[in-house]
Amino acid sequence: MSKIITISRQFGSGGRELGKRLADELHLPIYDHEIIEQLAAEHELTPEYIESLSEQSVRFSYQPTIGHRFTVQYPAADQQLKLITAQEQLIRKLAEHDCIIVGRAADVLLADRNPFNIFVYADMTSRINRCMERENPGENLSANQLKNRIRKIDRQRASYRSLFAETPWGRKENYTLCINTSECTPKAIAPALAVYINAWFS
Amino acid sequence: MSKIITISRQFGSGGRELGKRLADELHLPIYDHEIIEQLAAEHELTPEYIESLSEQSVRFSYQPTIGHRFTVQYPAADQQLKLITAQEQLIRKLAEHDCIIVGRAADVLLADRNPFNIFVYADMTSRINRCMERENPGENLSANQLKNRIRKIDRQRASYRSLFAETPWGRKENYTLCINTSECTPKAIAPALAVYINAWFS
Repeated sequence: MSKIITISRQFGSGGRELGKRLADELHLPIYDHEIIEQLAAEHELTPEYIESLSEQSVRFSYQPTIGHRFTVQYPAADQQLKLITAQEQLIRKLAEHDCIIVGRAADVLLADRNPFNIFVYADMTSRINRCMERENPGENLSANQLKNRIRKIDRQRASYRSLFAETPWGRKENYTLCINTSECTPKAIAPALAVYINAWFS
Repeated sequence: MSKIITISRQFGSGGRELGKRLADELHLPIYDHEIIEQLAAEHELTPEYIESLSEQSVRFSYQPTIGHRFTVQYPAADQQLKLITAQEQLIRKLAEHDCIIVGRAADVLLADRNPFNIFVYADMTSRINRCMERENPGENLSANQLKNRIRKIDRQRASYRSLFAETPWGRKENYTLCINTSECTPKAIAPALAVYINAWFS
């Protein structure tokens, strides 16, 4: 069985770091921002523009019974649709080999590959603290500003996933393992998580 | 730090078996039906009667800000209230030493002990299959009958927990780790889970 791991995560939960550490433990490639960069290069667009796809406000309807078919309700969404489709194709191509994919609805897009789907979450206080520790110099956002940013990004992630699936982002039933990082660091749990994943795949 | 592990689980998810295997791995005592038996002996009641507490239909209101205070709305609930209180005291006593406690809202009752709280769940098909494998000889319930039983017992568990907490049973934010057993056996994951728990406590 191929070893495909997807990581969905609340903003500020440490999911990205957990993914990197897990990739080291399992000796697997991890695709996160690399997906954006590759798409940007292929389509001669900026990574920032590709990233903003997940902030899209257009709505598509997805009909899973007949394969991927989007109904675009706004003609202006044409390019976005093309990029979303290109991203999906790229994710499927990457997953031809064992790997870890962070975000981008990979758990839904790769469902037929039977991936190990992780959801990483934490309480708001620890997420704010984690964001504060990683803030760019000079940013100095207040706890309240960070809370608003966290909520906004989570809404965007949920919205992006809703393009491909009817089940909501973060609903535990969609995932193989849901990990609360409120009281632990990715560093502390990554080796044990690797053991757990290997046991699941064996 | 003391090592207290609580296991909440959907009926048919294999949570009880996972607890037993985890207890073997971690060399910890596990309390599940033992709680019922001890209470039954102390109160000179049958284990079945004690077990039926979780099927109670009376309602208590719990005011966490001033400690445990129940307002009994029906005088007939007096004995139930006494037994629920006795069960709570017993769980607190057991948790004076490292242990695993299955069910009985232990995650809420022991929140001040900072336990590792597990929620075990699975999709309905695998829960029905698991129940069928473990059915008593001659029971022969249909898949539909088992589904109804599963839903009823889950409702009871959720209801029992609601006596002590405002946050709902099964909400991932209440737990340290949520484990989906739809595609794995407790036997396969128990050793790796033990490694994960040891890492979390260290």
